[in-house]
Amino acid sequence: MSLLVLGTAALDTVKTPFGARREMLGGSAVHFSMSASFFTKIDLVAIVGRDFPKKYIKFLNSKNVILTSFVIEQGRTFRWKGEYTGDLNSALTLGTELGVLSIFNPKVAEHQRAIKNIFLANVDPDLQLSLLSKMRDPRLVGLDSMNYWIDHKKSSLLKLMKKVDIYVANDAEARSLSKETNLLKAAKCLRRMGPPIIIIKKGEHGVLVYSDDFIFSLPAYPVEKVVDPTGAGDTFAGGFMGYLTKVKKINGNALKKAVTYGIVMASFNVEGFGVERSSRVTLKDIESRLQRFRRIACF
Amino acid sequence: MSLLVLGTAALDTVKTPFGARREMLGGSAVHFSMSASFFTKIDLVAIVGRDFPKKYIKFLNSKNVILTSFVIEQGRTFRWKGEYTGDLNSALTLGTELGVLSIFNPKVAEHQRAIKNIFLANVDPDLQLSLLSKMRDPRLVGLDSMNYWIDHKKSSLLKLMKKVDIYVANDAEARSLSKETNLLKAAKCLRRMGPPIIIIKKGEHGVLVYSDDFIFSLPAYPVEKVVDPTGAGDTFAGGFMGYLTKVKKINGNALKKAVTYGIVMASFNVEGFGVERSSRVTLKDIESRLQRFRRIACF
Repeated sequence: MSLLVLGTAALDTVKTPFGARREMLGGSAVHFSMSASFFTKIDLVAIVGRDFPKKYIKFLNSKNVILTSFVIEQGRTFRWKGEYTGDLNSALTLGTELGVLSIFNPKVAEHQRAIKNIFLANVDPDLQLSLLSKMRDPRLVGLDSMNYWIDHKKSSLLKLMKKVDIYVANDAEARSLSKETNLLKAAKCLRRMGPPIIIIKKGEHGVLVYSDDFIFSLPAYPVEKVVDPTGAGDTFAGGFMGYLTKVKKINGNALKKAVTYGIVMASFNVEGFGVERSSRVTLKDIESRLQRFRRIACF
Repeated sequence: MSLLVLGTAALDTVKTPFGARREMLGGSAVHFSMSASFFTKIDLVAIVGRDFPKKYIKFLNSKNVILTSFVIEQGRTFRWKGEYTGDLNSALTLGTELGVLSIFNPKVAEHQRAIKNIFLANVDPDLQLSLLSKMRDPRLVGLDSMNYWIDHKKSSLLKLMKKVDIYVANDAEARSLSKETNLLKAAKCLRRMGPPIIIIKKGEHGVLVYSDDFIFSLPAYPVEKVVDPTGAGDTFAGGFMGYLTKVKKINGNALKKAVTYGIVMASFNVEGFGVERSSRVTLKDIESRLQRFRRIACF
């Protein structure tokens, strides 16, 4: 089984209380891929400019990320600049440069159209719709978005929600789209918009999963030194979808276990800048942290 | 085994998006007792004025709360008036009338001095110190406080922390006292102030438990309709200390189970005004919600 992700590849400039990085490898689809690659073959659909450092291409290749539909186009790569202060729970965006993202028209190779598991990471919902329409017979489709699209492309987003199996949102996005403050009510409202499974990410407070048949609520893995939370949500989604793709089944138990892998992957992500920490862990590190998480959170 | 609690008994006037109540039964020690009474005999040490309604005395008696050291004094009962809006996560205090609380000098009967398990619910730390000094040979002492005492009676609070086994704080209090934003760091810092077990209540986000030997992080039980969160923290503490008193042991497993009972009791508390809901549940309701909580939160 393999997994295909559409989203952004970016050059991130980030400052946190623990340091700073200039133009490091980032983007929703990159964080997702890095995390999913521990569990499955991952096909990355994204666009970058000619200025995208070759070392990053080499790095992605070395992680078994398949770059067949990773387009290098004339122009500059999408850039994001942000800063975290205080408890590092939310980023202050200092600048965004769309670059080649503004001319992106995602395409996949003929053989990729048969891939059954798809994740539409955060990017313009019209691009997500366009990519999804090109897939032949999707079996499991996950969707992420952001407040900007909820505010500016709501009708496209709502159209998309009727076509996906899993909607992943953070708490602010879930509240904004549902207009409910209580997260359980918000999840129920999002469920009625289409997706049978709703996953609400609450940052340092963990994850709420809602479906007609079950609810899960899991805390985050407690991390003492959060160095850079950029990409934590995408890393969560990568672990989650990667695990589901690996085990080839979708039931309550598999979903719950997938969520725990997502939480563990996100906990590694926040311990370093960009993908510095999450790309260096081993399967043994992941399993050992999962065991510790079980001791911390199960009763 | 029995459990003794010192704290406030109050008349609460509360408004929330779901309605309002005037001068209903409240106070830290009352909420604690109501919850603990499901697990153990509970001795309530508090003061009220002559205006305290007889029906509330009758009610407490009917719940097997022992009122030997529940003092009715000339003067008015402590009153609190507050309002909750939005996501009901924090109360706006509209008024406080200390009444007889300002002349409170907590005493216990001779036979009560032998009680081994004690909870010092939120009240002036000097009263907590005074009560504790009267107990003969405490085995397990829990402590709660609030931001007001952290700001105004810090030295008494720090003195107290060296004498207790368990410190229970909400996230804002933990951050304020430790001057750490990361809650795991905050817990470690509070541990160094004395108490071997630190419990940080995060409201709708659950509970973090820290000791030298273990960490637990549990979500809250998901409640769709939070009617009135007043006393949720005290109700949590009552279930927690009540269960520990019942099982007569303190190890990692017992503590974890005690936390889950505390969470379940608190989830009932927030579903009604004051003690309206939490006082009406049955042991069967509690066990059945605990089973559901396990399905929701364990993996």
